[in-house]
Amino acid sequence: MWALALTAARLSPPLPPPPPTLLPLPPTTPNHLHAHPTLPPPCRPPPSPCLRPPLLAFLHPITFLRWISQLLHRRVWPTTLRPGEVALVIKLGGSALTDKTSFETVKERVLQTTALQLRASTAPVIVHGAGSFGHFQAHEFGVARGAADPRFSWLGFSQTRASVSRLHTRVVSSLVAAGLPAVGLPPFPHWRTREKRVSRARVAELRAVLAKGLLPVLHGDAVFTDEGRECGILSGDELCRALSEALRPRLCVFLASVAGVFDRPPEAPHAKLIRVIRVDRRGRLVEGPKVSTDSVAHDVTGGLRAKLEAAVQIARLGVPVCICEGGTGHAAMALQGRIPSVCTMLVRSDHSFPEGGDYLATSCSKSTGTSVS
Amino acid sequence: MWALALTAARLSPPLPPPPPTLLPLPPTTPNHLHAHPTLPPPCRPPPSPCLRPPLLAFLHPITFLRWISQLLHRRVWPTTLRPGEVALVIKLGGSALTDKTSFETVKERVLQTTALQLRASTAPVIVHGAGSFGHFQAHEFGVARGAADPRFSWLGFSQTRASVSRLHTRVVSSLVAAGLPAVGLPPFPHWRTREKRVSRARVAELRAVLAKGLLPVLHGDAVFTDEGRECGILSGDELCRALSEALRPRLCVFLASVAGVFDRPPEAPHAKLIRVIRVDRRGRLVEGPKVSTDSVAHDVTGGLRAKLEAAVQIARLGVPVCICEGGTGHAAMALQGRIPSVCTMLVRSDHSFPEGGDYLATSCSKSTGTSVS
Repeated sequence: MWALALTAARLSPPLPPPPPTLLPLPPTTPNHLHAHPTLPPPCRPPPSPCLRPPLLAFLHPITFLRWISQLLHRRVWPTTLRPGEVALVIKLGGSALTDKTSFETVKERVLQTTALQLRASTAPVIVHGAGSFGHFQAHEFGVARGAADPRFSWLGFSQTRASVSRLHTRVVSSLVAAGLPAVGLPPFPHWRTREKRVSRARVAELRAVLAKGLLPVLHGDAVFTDEGRECGILSGDELCRALSEALRPRLCVFLASVAGVFDRPPEAPHAKLIRVIRVDRRGRLVEGPKVSTDSVAHDVTGGLRAKLEAAVQIARLGVPVCICEGGTGHAAMALQGRIPSVCTMLVRSDHSFPEGGDYLATSCSKSTGTSVS
Repeated sequence: MWALALTAARLSPPLPPPPPTLLPLPPTTPNHLHAHPTLPPPCRPPPSPCLRPPLLAFLHPITFLRWISQLLHRRVWPTTLRPGEVALVIKLGGSALTDKTSFETVKERVLQTTALQLRASTAPVIVHGAGSFGHFQAHEFGVARGAADPRFSWLGFSQTRASVSRLHTRVVSSLVAAGLPAVGLPPFPHWRTREKRVSRARVAELRAVLAKGLLPVLHGDAVFTDEGRECGILSGDELCRALSEALRPRLCVFLASVAGVFDRPPEAPHAKLIRVIRVDRRGRLVEGPKVSTDSVAHDVTGGLRAKLEAAVQIARLGVPVCICEGGTGHAAMALQGRIPSVCTMLVRSDHSFPEGGDYLATSCSKSTGTSVS
């Protein structure tokens, strides 16, 4: 589709591209997972095949062109999912989900809104952060530095895990209450890390869960490491990166507490939202003025630095990343695989995805996540 | 030790044997897991070797005899744990932990008392049941019969799991609050069943958790099956059996809502507690008057039937089973590996364990679990 749109754009005067639809809308037929008929049906993988049948393609010119386009441009997202394919890896950021300044406090409105929005999503995997759950304990006992830290104890490790599990149970319960077949898959003790990167993943079990039409929910966790320090923190961002590498979803969505990546702290005057950041196959930034992964500015934009570093690693794999504000209408669009007007997109430079446009044109308020200029 | 005691008994007039100590008391030295100095130190595996050094054995006659006894009678429990050996598999029964007649209601007193009692325990693995959590949902959606049931849906499956996870989080949080380094290990999706028996276990991860001195907490769960019905219930009792088979603990403790197995419903007049049930290597009952695993009476004694069937399977492995009432002083003794005066013991018939005594001599009240006649 995009290749066709770009070809058309070259023939006619350039127009601002419409928000592209990455994924088909979910089927509207009722299914056995559908608990509340007044709400949209919950997520499940569509049974349709990867490419439309060539016979139908030859009968309809647009379908034929789309089919040819998909054969020639594998980078363009196909409009249907292969059986067992994951459409979305969604990171529910700890700062979006909880009040990070208050001990074990959930932002109930964001959680419940996101749960309802996820009903219109298709074949997602959810990872949530810890926010104000676990972070206090992890800091007190030096869990991130493991047994090497003088403050460390295994009791502190279990306190950290117990706290994160409390949030995890609430997240899964909220999703289930919204009619989603969510099941929790805590990474501990099956996942392991080495130098903060996943060294042992358990993706086969996750695929088995997905194959049943269930909605797997993972979380950033305290895990064992393959190093001498024995244990450490597996961040939700790194978990997203590892899952994106293993599952190759169509899109990765980071729901943050801010509307995206800004060129300066979003509460500063004239802060501008960066619309698109392009990276090459090595993860180097090739487009995105005044943005770098080691920019200090990102440390004060709601903890976006780690998110941005993980997002860059995901984008270089060829999986586009959309960073937007959780609980907003923009998040609702992103969770349906559509690119909202207010977000930051990270894409690989050789991908035929939003060409043209001024990526610094939109200034957003932090609180609402909507365009103000 | 018991072989020696039996030899002495043959030389002198028979005396009622004292309550045998199966396990050494935990070390009293403070360790890094010890949060509250006024309470006994929490569980951790002792570092001592299996047998005392032969040099020391030859210097001290009693030690020498014990060493010889341990060499000759492998059935006699050694007094020290091998590194990584599991001392206890503890089943916290759903009826002991929750009010089964009331939706998602925890017996807070039993939970907190058990958490404090577990601090004096040594190298345990805990399995808890679901009680009034999960059972209602599992029944509503026919989860136990799987996808073959007309009521079944995967949303019901996730509702069942979400409910059990809420109990699990509360149990782990209570144990951690009592100063125990507890970590939750839900069986789903890693464990699988076939015909209600474990067909795939994940014991390696559990051993890794134990090796760090952590306290693993598992629970009865809704899991995938290897059969056509796709999913089913892995009961906490079957989980105990599988763990006992894999880990070969010194003792398995079932904490129930009643004092043990009775010859009739425990609230009936003249109900007598059966002290010892002996089974052979095939799991057939060889001692225990009026007791059979298919007796209807056990279905009305607080759901003891499934517990008893699992306990028989564990006892035939050579692991003695102690069934007693949770939250009582008897449970406290059992959790230290000592046999309380009010309980039901299941042992294999070729084991040199409690000889003599009238196993139907003690009648117990249901509520207190203490001897009344």
